[in-house]
Amino acid sequence: MINTSIFGASGYAGGELLRILTGHPKVKIQQVTSRQFAGLPVSLVNPNLRKKTDLVFSHPDQLKKCDLLFIALPNGESMKYMNKLKTLAKKVIDLGADYRLREQVTFENWYKQKHLNPEMLKKFVYGVVELHRDEIKKSSYVAGPGCEATVSILSLYPLVKHNLIEGKIIIDAKMSSSQAGLKPSLSSHHPERSGVVRSYMPSGHRHTAEIIQELSPFSDKLDVAISATAIDMVRGLLVTIHTIPKNGVTEKEVWKAYRAEYGNEPFIRIVKERQGLYRFPEPKILQGTNFCDIGFEMDTVSKRLVIIGAIDNLVKGTAGQAVQAMNLMYGYPEETGLEFPGLHPI
Amino acid sequence: MINTSIFGASGYAGGELLRILTGHPKVKIQQVTSRQFAGLPVSLVNPNLRKKTDLVFSHPDQLKKCDLLFIALPNGESMKYMNKLKTLAKKVIDLGADYRLREQVTFENWYKQKHLNPEMLKKFVYGVVELHRDEIKKSSYVAGPGCEATVSILSLYPLVKHNLIEGKIIIDAKMSSSQAGLKPSLSSHHPERSGVVRSYMPSGHRHTAEIIQELSPFSDKLDVAISATAIDMVRGLLVTIHTIPKNGVTEKEVWKAYRAEYGNEPFIRIVKERQGLYRFPEPKILQGTNFCDIGFEMDTVSKRLVIIGAIDNLVKGTAGQAVQAMNLMYGYPEETGLEFPGLHPI
Amino acid sequence: MINTSIFGASGYAGGELLRILTGHPKVKIQQVTSRQFAGLPVSLVNPNLRKKTDLVFSHPDQLKKCDLLFIALPNGESMKYMNKLKTLAKKVIDLGADYRLREQVTFENWYKQKHLNPEMLKKFVYGVVELHRDEIKKSSYVAGPGCEATVSILSLYPLVKHNLIEGKIIIDAKMSSSQAGLKPSLSSHHPERSGVVRSYMPSGHRHTAEIIQELSPFSDKLDVAISATAIDMVRGLLVTIHTIPKNGVTEKEVWKAYRAEYGNEPFIRIVKERQGLYRFPEPKILQGTNFCDIGFEMDTVSKRLVIIGAIDNLVKGTAGQAVQAMNLMYGYPEETGLEFPGLHPI
Amino acid sequence: MINTSIFGASGYAGGELLRILTGHPKVKIQQVTSRQFAGLPVSLVNPNLRKKTDLVFSHPDQLKKCDLLFIALPNGESMKYMNKLKTLAKKVIDLGADYRLREQVTFENWYKQKHLNPEMLKKFVYGVVELHRDEIKKSSYVAGPGCEATVSILSLYPLVKHNLIEGKIIIDAKMSSSQAGLKPSLSSHHPERSGVVRSYMPSGHRHTAEIIQELSPFSDKLDVAISATAIDMVRGLLVTIHTIPKNGVTEKEVWKAYRAEYGNEPFIRIVKERQGLYRFPEPKILQGTNFCDIGFEMDTVSKRLVIIGAIDNLVKGTAGQAVQAMNLMYGYPEETGLEFPGLHPI
Repeated sequence: MINTSIFGASGYAGGELLRILTGHPKVKIQQVTSRQFAGLPVSLVNPNLRKKTDLVFSHPDQLKKCDLLFIALPNGESMKYMNKLKTLAKKVIDLGADYRLREQVTFENWYKQKHLNPEMLKKFVYGVVELHRDEIKKSSYVAGPGCEATVSILSLYPLVKHNLIEGKIIIDAKMSSSQAGLKPSLSSHHPERSGVVRSYMPSGHRHTAEIIQELSPFSDKLDVAISATAIDMVRGLLVTIHTIPKNGVTEKEVWKAYRAEYGNEPFIRIVKERQGLYRFPEPKILQGTNFCDIGFEMDTVSKRLVIIGAIDNLVKGTAGQAVQAMNLMYGYPEETGLEFPGLHPI
Repeated sequence: MINTSIFGASGYAGGELLRILTGHPKVKIQQVTSRQFAGLPVSLVNPNLRKKTDLVFSHPDQLKKCDLLFIALPNGESMKYMNKLKTLAKKVIDLGADYRLREQVTFENWYKQKHLNPEMLKKFVYGVVELHRDEIKKSSYVAGPGCEATVSILSLYPLVKHNLIEGKIIIDAKMSSSQAGLKPSLSSHHPERSGVVRSYMPSGHRHTAEIIQELSPFSDKLDVAISATAIDMVRGLLVTIHTIPKNGVTEKEVWKAYRAEYGNEPFIRIVKERQGLYRFPEPKILQGTNFCDIGFEMDTVSKRLVIIGAIDNLVKGTAGQAVQAMNLMYGYPEETGLEFPGLHPI
Repeated sequence: MINTSIFGASGYAGGELLRILTGHPKVKIQQVTSRQFAGLPVSLVNPNLRKKTDLVFSHPDQLKKCDLLFIALPNGESMKYMNKLKTLAKKVIDLGADYRLREQVTFENWYKQKHLNPEMLKKFVYGVVELHRDEIKKSSYVAGPGCEATVSILSLYPLVKHNLIEGKIIIDAKMSSSQAGLKPSLSSHHPERSGVVRSYMPSGHRHTAEIIQELSPFSDKLDVAISATAIDMVRGLLVTIHTIPKNGVTEKEVWKAYRAEYGNEPFIRIVKERQGLYRFPEPKILQGTNFCDIGFEMDTVSKRLVIIGAIDNLVKGTAGQAVQAMNLMYGYPEETGLEFPGLHPI
Repeated sequence: MINTSIFGASGYAGGELLRILTGHPKVKIQQVTSRQFAGLPVSLVNPNLRKKTDLVFSHPDQLKKCDLLFIALPNGESMKYMNKLKTLAKKVIDLGADYRLREQVTFENWYKQKHLNPEMLKKFVYGVVELHRDEIKKSSYVAGPGCEATVSILSLYPLVKHNLIEGKIIIDAKMSSSQAGLKPSLSSHHPERSGVVRSYMPSGHRHTAEIIQELSPFSDKLDVAISATAIDMVRGLLVTIHTIPKNGVTEKEVWKAYRAEYGNEPFIRIVKERQGLYRFPEPKILQGTNFCDIGFEMDTVSKRLVIIGAIDNLVKGTAGQAVQAMNLMYGYPEETGLEFPGLHPI
């Protein structure tokens, strides 16, 4: 049993963490902070938690010592407080972007701001469990990966590692509205956001940096491009990844690579069916789950290997992945608290 | 630990039962039957259960003895098989409509068909746990209530019992597409069904009979009318119930009545907030949960007490409520297997 | 050919007016004003008008004389400027709420603010064309009705006038997000607003005052109640109106009353079919049209006459109805500019 | 004024044609045929046309001579009847796939069936007006292009013709449910289809053949791949096209190529804004319109030129494009009957 707190808990990532941790048998939630909502019940902003918890938001200044601190602040914020926060907790999992990139210069290039705490960058382990299980077990500092990076890295890792693809990797991402967070704006205003197929970032997505960082150990010539399109979906993320298979690569070899890397992974499912409606990964049935579903198809007309990856951006893409890392760090079974199978129909 | 089977498991109610029972610590699922899918994995029609169960559909003719049998057949089917099925199981929970109404004539009036097994009608207990807890504990036969009836009965019961309302009760129900089941038709065809606000049953809803049956012990002049409107929602059900308060009834008395009846109920929440977005019940955050949320408002201009009730039609309205009854029947804690809190945002 | 301007044109009502007037063969749009967007093309906020108009927003201070001025300001604003604005235009159509209620005290009761220009109240004609055609023809000042009031009045008028109903009238309104206007807030934030069935106003809707004003000439004991529920819809409005028919009233008489009042109305359709999917009014196929579709069903179990009315809140509920009034005021055929039939499927 | 008939008018393409032709000032609709609905009013399946037309479906055997015959049959059907149908009409526009491909072998390769009327293949002009305006003017036979092909060809044509791109062209298409037509199935069943991001065709889309046919005159090494993903949208189609710019190609040159080809096109808009929410093409505001909106962005990190194209699949992708061709064939202004600007918000 561990004491955990969440620093900056009033956003969607914090709320999802709360939802998961409330049902986690090995966790006592000690404090959750919010400047805006201090003193109010967490169920005010998380109406799903009514009758599940009586927790009340604490003011950030009142944060006490705990075993594990989750940080769920907007990008650029946690690096301001890290030196103080790390004195309050033995272990830290930061869900934001500040400690995901190992190189200060890479961070500064992509985020267009100075890193305020570069000395801590190399202490953080990048929190994709499937790639860094052993490091995470031993680590005290984990950086929660970006949701778009998570699904892309997991979809591509076996292919790159097993040397099955070459040339440009094009990630066509279909994004949901919860990814933009809790802050209302005209672009999230329902009459404007509803029904969109909005090319909000045809190029230049910052998660590119994480993908390259994580896959470059396995390939020296990575060329990764992302185009992000927002669709009418609250939760969920699907990537259609267009890759070029090396000459002679067959579907069988692709299967083998995925099995080799993920055969024992509790949260990865290879979805490639001949029957039924759900022949490939589909984000809607992943809502609330920690699964990453991955499928693929060899294009027999134009030389191409299409990879399809899906996650719930708030669970496997954020809070669930963080709890999976926490479970590892404390020796709990990896699935603890993450058993929800998802709903169908939905 | 009990052995359960599901007879007729390939529809949405059966799928939801499977989802819940798969995570229930006291249940072993022995068989699930489907004529159409016999021999195929249940995950073919329940893609959310991939990696959660290896269960395969059995042919109905191969149904074996079990402790508890759930029946999830279309209305009018279970009464054909009941005499045989009850020899195979010590206890039966039928999710369909065949045994919900105690009077044969009432069934035949509303369902426009002859009842084929009227001698069993009085052996079944109507499965709204909050009204029939003691009977269910002792019963071997439980009839799972209709979803629309469930939320309406739960919303109205304290008011009728405490004699707070009079005159006509008008239930304006907002319905989802999963209520119509798994069978495709032009009316469920996405381009036609999407975006509708369809008055598919302005009057004459058959669940009226259940509501009257359950509330009439507390009032001798019940006048209940339902208008059902289908909206663009897959799961969930909200009723806006327009009632007339008796002279002098105050909001305080309404509060008191709900507290008296539901103060200790694990799955009922009175939702009536002054702050936040979710001031009244909202079905979207109930998806996957067994909660029934109830709110109300006294109309100070036109004499009226408006009650708002919301459930997930497949959980509290069907499968979850059935598992709640099962828990009672076997002395398990009532919430077992029904702990999922629901998601936000969604 | 007339010169028209729109004062306060950057909101949804103003945008819809622009859309309609751009295609109106008898109208020259002289100016459209916006404080915020002055100098910018109207297609910036109305992307549907790209290539349809080169119009640029003017600053409100630069408003010039015109034949007809439309005012599309938030409630409570036009009464501040009316005395000045009426010197600039021979005729005025105000889409806001300020001049809809003939009695100052009624306005002040419902809107909880002082009326700043009560002397003009009785000069305005209430703009439901079907009830006030002759007055509108002769008038220089028209108040555009509220969308919820429009569909409710049109649905009820023949019944009240022909003395077919009695007792309480309960309007259960299903509302869309565009009714709340262009201003983002947490309640309109897509992850929160999407998928809702939100009882945002179980009682106390201000349009009640308009309905009573318009129907009271035909009945001395009007008791009208509205419950408003927001659903996941951008455009459109459906009311399910629960009424009590007088003793002995038949569906035939209801038909007769609607035919008597609306038989020659170009924009009202009585929709009550035995076949097909669209047996009753449905707002989705009315998007962009000026139709008000009305249907009904006699409840044979509980004594009740259910009326179903649907409109596009921005067209028949706002801008289209205003153009219909304008056509009348200038002797143009009533349908001019309002011919769009709507789309199916959609 | 011309007499037109529609052969096979009860589907979505036929319904959209009807909607447009009903408002076309130069067209008299003589007959619309449907085997299933013969004798019934067209408004039964096109509820938007109530009060707009009294037309009744004719049986196909009763088709009479007319000036122009539109054929709106499922793929593979019109080639069975063409020899007879062409005796009944001076001009024919076939909306199906049977006459789109000039080469019999190409048709048979992609459609996996024998062509039954190959001698007519070369008499048909491929109906993308922007590429074949002069031929269409002189032609009696026009083949209406596939919706996915239309938007892809229009998006790519200036780039290929002006020699600005090289290598593989990857079309990531986001598709709506109306594209699959009127026939219900489990895959179109609302609870299953709603909310999907379904990779229903990661490779092998048949419209590839049309794209290659139309663009190959301008390039001898076309390599085109399509991945099609169905999203929760009834109408509309967006393609994100990932291309490789030739060395040194700038955004300015891209602009120039689009302007050169489309500067005078009434239905093509280049959408690439720095401000506002609708900076790139967006299908939702195109519903009901004949526009094809095209935008682009040069990727400065990975060498890539991303093209974004959007249409309403039933208008510019089917019926509207056919009417545009008809207007040309009869010397009417090209926009006649196609003036609807689309709605916002929607």
